[in-house]
Amino acid sequence: MAGNSIGKEFVITSFGESHGKYVGVIVDGCPAGLPLSEADIQAELDRRIPAEPKIVSGRIEKDVAKILSGVFSGFTTGAPVALMVENKEVDSSDYEAIKDLPRPGHADYPARMKYGGFNDYRGSGRFSGRVTVTIILAGAIAKKLLNRFDVDVLAYTRAIGKVKVDKKFSAQEIRNNTYAAATRCPDLVCAESMEEAIIAARKEGESIGGIVECVAFNVPVGVGEPLFDSLDADIAKALLNIPAVKGVEFGLGFQMAELKGSESNDPYALQKQKIVTLTENAGGIVGGLSNGMPIIIRVAIKPTPSIGKEQKTVNLSTLRDSHITVRGRHDPCVVPKAVPAVESAVAITLADHLIRAGIIPKVLESKK
Amino acid sequence: MAGNSIGKEFVITSFGESHGKYVGVIVDGCPAGLPLSEADIQAELDRRIPAEPKIVSGRIEKDVAKILSGVFSGFTTGAPVALMVENKEVDSSDYEAIKDLPRPGHADYPARMKYGGFNDYRGSGRFSGRVTVTIILAGAIAKKLLNRFDVDVLAYTRAIGKVKVDKKFSAQEIRNNTYAAATRCPDLVCAESMEEAIIAARKEGESIGGIVECVAFNVPVGVGEPLFDSLDADIAKALLNIPAVKGVEFGLGFQMAELKGSESNDPYALQKQKIVTLTENAGGIVGGLSNGMPIIIRVAIKPTPSIGKEQKTVNLSTLRDSHITVRGRHDPCVVPKAVPAVESAVAITLADHLIRAGIIPKVLESKK
Amino acid sequence: MAGNSIGKEFVITSFGESHGKYVGVIVDGCPAGLPLSEADIQAELDRRIPAEPKIVSGRIEKDVAKILSGVFSGFTTGAPVALMVENKEVDSSDYEAIKDLPRPGHADYPARMKYGGFNDYRGSGRFSGRVTVTIILAGAIAKKLLNRFDVDVLAYTRAIGKVKVDKKFSAQEIRNNTYAAATRCPDLVCAESMEEAIIAARKEGESIGGIVECVAFNVPVGVGEPLFDSLDADIAKALLNIPAVKGVEFGLGFQMAELKGSESNDPYALQKQKIVTLTENAGGIVGGLSNGMPIIIRVAIKPTPSIGKEQKTVNLSTLRDSHITVRGRHDPCVVPKAVPAVESAVAITLADHLIRAGIIPKVLESKK
Amino acid sequence: MAGNSIGKEFVITSFGESHGKYVGVIVDGCPAGLPLSEADIQAELDRRIPAEPKIVSGRIEKDVAKILSGVFSGFTTGAPVALMVENKEVDSSDYEAIKDLPRPGHADYPARMKYGGFNDYRGSGRFSGRVTVTIILAGAIAKKLLNRFDVDVLAYTRAIGKVKVDKKFSAQEIRNNTYAAATRCPDLVCAESMEEAIIAARKEGESIGGIVECVAFNVPVGVGEPLFDSLDADIAKALLNIPAVKGVEFGLGFQMAELKGSESNDPYALQKQKIVTLTENAGGIVGGLSNGMPIIIRVAIKPTPSIGKEQKTVNLSTLRDSHITVRGRHDPCVVPKAVPAVESAVAITLADHLIRAGIIPKVLESKK
Repeated sequence: MAGNSIGKEFVITSFGESHGKYVGVIVDGCPAGLPLSEADIQAELDRRIPAEPKIVSGRIEKDVAKILSGVFSGFTTGAPVALMVENKEVDSSDYEAIKDLPRPGHADYPARMKYGGFNDYRGSGRFSGRVTVTIILAGAIAKKLLNRFDVDVLAYTRAIGKVKVDKKFSAQEIRNNTYAAATRCPDLVCAESMEEAIIAARKEGESIGGIVECVAFNVPVGVGEPLFDSLDADIAKALLNIPAVKGVEFGLGFQMAELKGSESNDPYALQKQKIVTLTENAGGIVGGLSNGMPIIIRVAIKPTPSIGKEQKTVNLSTLRDSHITVRGRHDPCVVPKAVPAVESAVAITLADHLIRAGIIPKVLESKK
Repeated sequence: MAGNSIGKEFVITSFGESHGKYVGVIVDGCPAGLPLSEADIQAELDRRIPAEPKIVSGRIEKDVAKILSGVFSGFTTGAPVALMVENKEVDSSDYEAIKDLPRPGHADYPARMKYGGFNDYRGSGRFSGRVTVTIILAGAIAKKLLNRFDVDVLAYTRAIGKVKVDKKFSAQEIRNNTYAAATRCPDLVCAESMEEAIIAARKEGESIGGIVECVAFNVPVGVGEPLFDSLDADIAKALLNIPAVKGVEFGLGFQMAELKGSESNDPYALQKQKIVTLTENAGGIVGGLSNGMPIIIRVAIKPTPSIGKEQKTVNLSTLRDSHITVRGRHDPCVVPKAVPAVESAVAITLADHLIRAGIIPKVLESKK
Repeated sequence: MAGNSIGKEFVITSFGESHGKYVGVIVDGCPAGLPLSEADIQAELDRRIPAEPKIVSGRIEKDVAKILSGVFSGFTTGAPVALMVENKEVDSSDYEAIKDLPRPGHADYPARMKYGGFNDYRGSGRFSGRVTVTIILAGAIAKKLLNRFDVDVLAYTRAIGKVKVDKKFSAQEIRNNTYAAATRCPDLVCAESMEEAIIAARKEGESIGGIVECVAFNVPVGVGEPLFDSLDADIAKALLNIPAVKGVEFGLGFQMAELKGSESNDPYALQKQKIVTLTENAGGIVGGLSNGMPIIIRVAIKPTPSIGKEQKTVNLSTLRDSHITVRGRHDPCVVPKAVPAVESAVAITLADHLIRAGIIPKVLESKK
Repeated sequence: MAGNSIGKEFVITSFGESHGKYVGVIVDGCPAGLPLSEADIQAELDRRIPAEPKIVSGRIEKDVAKILSGVFSGFTTGAPVALMVENKEVDSSDYEAIKDLPRPGHADYPARMKYGGFNDYRGSGRFSGRVTVTIILAGAIAKKLLNRFDVDVLAYTRAIGKVKVDKKFSAQEIRNNTYAAATRCPDLVCAESMEEAIIAARKEGESIGGIVECVAFNVPVGVGEPLFDSLDADIAKALLNIPAVKGVEFGLGFQMAELKGSESNDPYALQKQKIVTLTENAGGIVGGLSNGMPIIIRVAIKPTPSIGKEQKTVNLSTLRDSHITVRGRHDPCVVPKAVPAVESAVAITLADHLIRAGIIPKVLESKK
């Protein structure tokens, strides 16, 4: 049943439930010698909750990051780094009433079957979006590690519902604008339309989905381990573990199905003594290996399954058709919260693979 | 660097290169007591090469499956099952000439960088579509195992280039028609248009891509291991390891981004005393767990990167801009060959997860 | 570098350092439906520190077990169970002075080299016997799980220094007497001589070692996974990870080297309709599989390396020969503390293997 | 059930049975750029069978090593290296008769129970000493890799039955003499007494055991991954997977239990600008890390369980007490065959850990 670890060299193991006391993560395999403080972790954690209250749930998750182990005198020691956040303001009262009524789109029904009814069903328990906090905690370390090797992973919103933005963003634009917008879209005009779309959905008792894009800049060429730990395969796996993700594509992705070989291949050329590709259709990965160009990933986020409207369901105790109206505090759109989770999942995978490739060493520098 | 194994209970380890002597696989963790013969494996292997010579490469890979270990008196023993196929008719003469000219869309350039030039570059070596033979070998066992538990995994072509088919197929239709068509599309009219599209591309010295869909019927509810071994995450990983796959989606996938919660959620209902969902938007997986409905997966296949047209590249020895025209035998479209590979990859992942869930036992029955 | 997890189905991941804020562990893969409380964990933890102050270090580690996740309404949920203990009364003042003087027998020197000087050297950091607390935390769960399936793992002291006890103990005797003695020897007369040996060593500024034996009763036949996850191999690995263990043997162990086949083989016979062996020379494991008889393991524990006498060392900063006299609070003999750690390590391995064998199911019972 | 792989970076996966068609292994994670030929593998394989026919079984296993993949132009490519040996001269006729009579000391009984009777029981099947061929195949690569980094792993016989040799051997002596003696003891006088002891046992229809010692020279300081992948733990695991091994100890091992701290600690000193220990009691490993001194390991080998004398057993079909006299070709002592297996198992573990530590890089050199 064990399945709460991911990675081979930079291994993260997550724990915690939505309405339990804590959520946390152990990062095992972080090289020694990385400067790390609770403030570093906190900064990433703070990006999870958009400041704009109109587009998020009533639950104000004031999360405080705590380092439990693995850091000494301001540096990682090579021992496992354990990180934890207390779950505050947990209100489980709404869940008792709907315990037997699985919510459509949630894991309630399969989880109950899988665990013989022993699963913590409050707030989706282990299946809640809340667990992405543990991905962000680990991602904070991964990103700091990658930055040291000039690798920059940046995620942002491409679409919310039917509001989309098509333009290509520079790293600079993404860095500057993404978190200026509550919807995490670096095009600040679009960002506002997205916000309106969310507010409109909320008013209807509805929810909406969207698309998150993530670009990893400066990943060296040759990262990835074919056949079965291809870089794209491992990134896709990390991303699909995030609740609400329903699809992942690289570069042109599904569009490639309609192209011809001469349209989809990325020709090579020399630019400033460096080998580059003239197009970026492959999204920076060929044959499971990075090709030195930006890695471009897009994920589909489904609408939040918790909606205010009445839905059909089955009462699992009486085994009769029934109805449910989900109460409690819910985000009308999880895309903004998904943005840092996507970024973290990609960063965690890249950190793992850069260590596996021998590009990031086991000790970053020597004190001696 | 090790990355040639996948799975936790049903673990497969692949070896071999396109122009090496053999390709093969070890399946470790197959339960004892499964009837298995070389004919079982051969039947799956034979489905890899479409009979229609106009749409495949000149290389006639007459593959013969051989069981090296793990089967005794017609049954699996619980020991590792090793399977192997000899690479015949290998012609490496075309590759020596283009050794220093990485082909656009292939792994030539990153592979050379990754392995310091020691990689077997002939016919893409370890990065060739040829290695999908090892996935099909292992998949043959996985499928036989799943069938015993009534799980049926069926893949087929949804699109080739711009020729698409939208209708929903029954398991019966897929079973009967898919391999009747060289293009592996169960709609035999569409199948023919797809064939024409491939032939047209070939005439232009071009290649085309497509979309493969895979449905797993009768997967029990509650299969998958959150957080990090979610069923969809593991399926996506297995699929993206197949060369040429650029995207994976479940159920409505990327379409979900535009929907509202009430449109995307699958409401529950009772049908013949069984809990079902009234729609199948989620593609049979919620929160990383199977919900008892058919699992629906789509993958994007890129156009074969080997095309007859001249392309820009860089000479890696002289570090000068250059050109390449790829000769040799190449499929103008790998979609038909990808169909059984996709089916196998999904079957391997499901076999692993059904064992992990305790649904498939370690010994299938007792001889005593 | 990651190496802080062990197990394949019952996977434990440990964190923490001797002088850090916490030590803890995540148990991933514990079946759902096991009754579990903090009191269960605490009871095991309390057995770590002998009541007799004369034979233990001055540091009174008042350890309080805390469950952070994975338990709901008194039962395990199938989600990871995180456990933690705060490190109290930590006094690191003695270590600053000897930072550059590696203590003979400790990991100080290789740890400094391995981690480029970033390792937390205080109280041996990650290499301290203190980390066995995390093994005991996880062991508490493993033992509770095993007990449910009638498997009983019992460790006790066989020798301290030159004081040895040779007689065979019944499960009952071990259960009743082991923790009645500060030295954890179920022969209470010998136990007292052992105590005297420890007190004598302490008076000389010395330390002594010993032998711990562990017997696992009622392990079903056929547990273990050849070739490379043999039951004895996995038990030995778990045990040698405990600091101070220098050897492991099964059944007659090293004595077997001198015997003949007819003396060492265990003949089979029927007793009360059950197949048993007439002798227990193999220690319950043949060919890496349990044979249904008690599993008998012995481990050699070295004398605590921290002693009051002056020892030769090298100053790592000045690279000159030097001397060290280790101050601080140290146990003159770690055997009594090793007893529950050995028991836990064996229990963890058995829990893992009984789940792997399908003997312990993924859900213990169904609430529904 | 999967358990046929070992290692995390240098991962070997074994297959094959005693009386199956092949035994073989996949080595995944061997760095690219290592010169490797079938002759390299053959040389190691040839050391498995002592030339002296009086001390080995009648079965003349003329093993021929074959490389199936992963080597191109004489160098490893970074892709998995598959190796295989055909099982010749297999005579299974003796086994049919004793199929229901489990041989004492063999895995027959637990294997039958574990696999529901589907296991290949001929010649012990997967539980035969024959499978050590796969360890030797992989070990040949590991040793070649280690030698490139000046690490030399040398095993030899310390005792056969009651004939023991106590002196310390230099690397030179071991290298020159070990394989000059059929019993693999570098003291050629003792070697002859050992041979006599084996011949005497054979005459009585008996078998005898012994002790193999293995020393790894020049292992750099700081190799090993605490807490759960300690170097000694991983070596012990690899060794206990070899059939017939019943115990493992490091340095003084079980003797340490009787010593005082000042007697067992290895004091540090400077010698020729290098930090060494003045004694080697710890056997080169402290706290799970190598300390730069020779790693010294001893394993106990039990007497071959197949003996000519009648033994008690139970008929598994009739469930009645019975007797068995094992016929067929059996070695009266497996110690000489165990010597290269022990050496290989240690080499495989060290290769894995030196890659994990970043000491052996992923690509040995660059061709470019």
